[in-house]
Amino acid sequence: MATLCRPAIAVPEHLITREQTLALAKVLHHDHPQLDLALRLIDNTGVQTRHILQPIGDTLEHPGFAVRNALYEKEAKSRVPDVVRRALDHADLTAADIDLIVYVSCTGFMMPSMTAWLINAMGFRSSTRQLPIAQLGCAAGGAAINRAHDFCTAYPRSNVLIVACEFCSLLYQPTDLGIGNLLSNGLFGDALAAAVVRGEGGEGVRIERNSSRLVPDTESWIAYEVRETGFHFLLDKRVPGTMSVLAPAMRDVAEPHGWDIADLDFYIVHAGGPRILDDLGKYLRLPPETFRYSRTTLTERGNVASVVIFDALERLFADGGAGHGARGVIAGFGPGITAEIALGTWTASRVAAVT
Amino acid sequence: MATLCRPAIAVPEHLITREQTLALAKVLHHDHPQLDLALRLIDNTGVQTRHILQPIGDTLEHPGFAVRNALYEKEAKSRVPDVVRRALDHADLTAADIDLIVYVSCTGFMMPSMTAWLINAMGFRSSTRQLPIAQLGCAAGGAAINRAHDFCTAYPRSNVLIVACEFCSLLYQPTDLGIGNLLSNGLFGDALAAAVVRGEGGEGVRIERNSSRLVPDTESWIAYEVRETGFHFLLDKRVPGTMSVLAPAMRDVAEPHGWDIADLDFYIVHAGGPRILDDLGKYLRLPPETFRYSRTTLTERGNVASVVIFDALERLFADGGAGHGARGVIAGFGPGITAEIALGTWTASRVAAVT
Repeated sequence: MATLCRPAIAVPEHLITREQTLALAKVLHHDHPQLDLALRLIDNTGVQTRHILQPIGDTLEHPGFAVRNALYEKEAKSRVPDVVRRALDHADLTAADIDLIVYVSCTGFMMPSMTAWLINAMGFRSSTRQLPIAQLGCAAGGAAINRAHDFCTAYPRSNVLIVACEFCSLLYQPTDLGIGNLLSNGLFGDALAAAVVRGEGGEGVRIERNSSRLVPDTESWIAYEVRETGFHFLLDKRVPGTMSVLAPAMRDVAEPHGWDIADLDFYIVHAGGPRILDDLGKYLRLPPETFRYSRTTLTERGNVASVVIFDALERLFADGGAGHGARGVIAGFGPGITAEIALGTWTASRVAAVT
Repeated sequence: MATLCRPAIAVPEHLITREQTLALAKVLHHDHPQLDLALRLIDNTGVQTRHILQPIGDTLEHPGFAVRNALYEKEAKSRVPDVVRRALDHADLTAADIDLIVYVSCTGFMMPSMTAWLINAMGFRSSTRQLPIAQLGCAAGGAAINRAHDFCTAYPRSNVLIVACEFCSLLYQPTDLGIGNLLSNGLFGDALAAAVVRGEGGEGVRIERNSSRLVPDTESWIAYEVRETGFHFLLDKRVPGTMSVLAPAMRDVAEPHGWDIADLDFYIVHAGGPRILDDLGKYLRLPPETFRYSRTTLTERGNVASVVIFDALERLFADGGAGHGARGVIAGFGPGITAEIALGTWTASRVAAVT
């Protein structure tokens, strides 16, 4: 058994609103031939506010890849410990109880990774296994949950700490003027999450099955170009349509488990953009409120990459949880195009203790 | 059970000898105040030949991070399929039998990672799980084996493909003139490896236990600095001395397994440099020939990062294997400083079928 406990979330202190984003786009790109389309796309995201590491003026500067990556490291070291402490508290564990740290982040690159720093700085055992993942983008949150599930399946008494740290604002590239870039500049936000997967005990989503799915021949649809200026984000206009493949993929994962994907009690899915949620509702014939946690994450924080599913899940916890025995799905989507899907049952430990 | 089958290895076609390396260092750094020390350190590595992607003239050019990373991608896509095919053959499996691909490489960065490309290009199932690891450096080969072991422990009928692809020559930084850099320029080589871990069946090392160990407060000893010019390798002079911690760590892993680390039948360890092997022999009181496969890898190919342990293991296979029931250890060392250690027993399938 592997129970995904309540996540801890943090967002940076600087806020940018939808109105500010649109006004900025109008100023910065006043002579862009597709400005109207970009404004419409940004408006359609439904993103109302986003949190970013630095004041907007600094965010729009590109001080060079070295400075940016150093800032990533400084800010990660400053902000990650708090979410880790709170996630451990939620799981009623201490650092010494953790057997594996999965650290996912696609917005900065460190070697050694943050896992080594965390072990040294926060009192994890020196035998704690380290699994840093930098190359799964927005799907990495789902991948982290799924690899944690695998690990607890292999070692049923073990505990896994997941950390997701995404400072998407550090990937702003002022010279990238494609329509996908302009949209991305109005879509992505910064956030951090940590969550513990307990092999025994814990309250939250007891993961029962996980699966991965690659949409064939879509590698270039969501991708980084690596340059002197850092990672340049490429977003193909076909991406929003991928639910036509991924909704059936989610159904395919549920069927051998004896579950109907359209008849679950909770849905925690990556909110890459509004159409993902709209289409998922359409293909699975589910009403919009089914995805309310993911949609609120998107509205209030933007697309916070691998953090999205943890932020949405935290909202479900804050809402009182799903009720003991409720069945649900967690799905992250990202480059590949890859879907990382987990099926699980809500487990309330107090109820579990009584029954 | 998880059996690490015979690896497939490839090296690029361009060769640089010890003599050429020393002559080049003398020309390039004729005015370096520590040239004599650098020459002595390079000479002491015992590296006789290294294989590199490009002719030496091109290798010494830095065409920019974007061009280099694009070259990484092109060469990886050109060279990885061959080792993958051979590794699948060694394991008597096809692409469709693989449930997880672990791709480790610290010398180029792609998102999506090579795992997505491999699935599309080589007929792996679209449900194949992807685990790309870029941030564990030389320890990543050991980490890949250990995570594959975990996965097969969770899902005993599954099979894992490991790919390690290291083009260290693409990290040459002509402006880095620290003594650690000059040494590294004479130490690292390029190579690729693939190997399958079979959950059932297979001939090779049946992994029985794995463990990770972080040497406290050594994060800065082996590290990348990320700059506009790419990854800059930092190597602290204290690194060669870490066996004083890691030899006891290896002992600590073996003891609860009922094994004496100093009394095993085979040792496949990371050959980061000659002193690692010398010290390991000293601390474990083992004669030099114990590490002959690792030493030959170092001598003939240099330090090929995460590929080292697969190259050394392949030499054990080529030497006829270790005999059914022989006990051994596989250990990768890298940034963190992290050791990834696996204990296993040699399994010859034909013998296994008879008994």
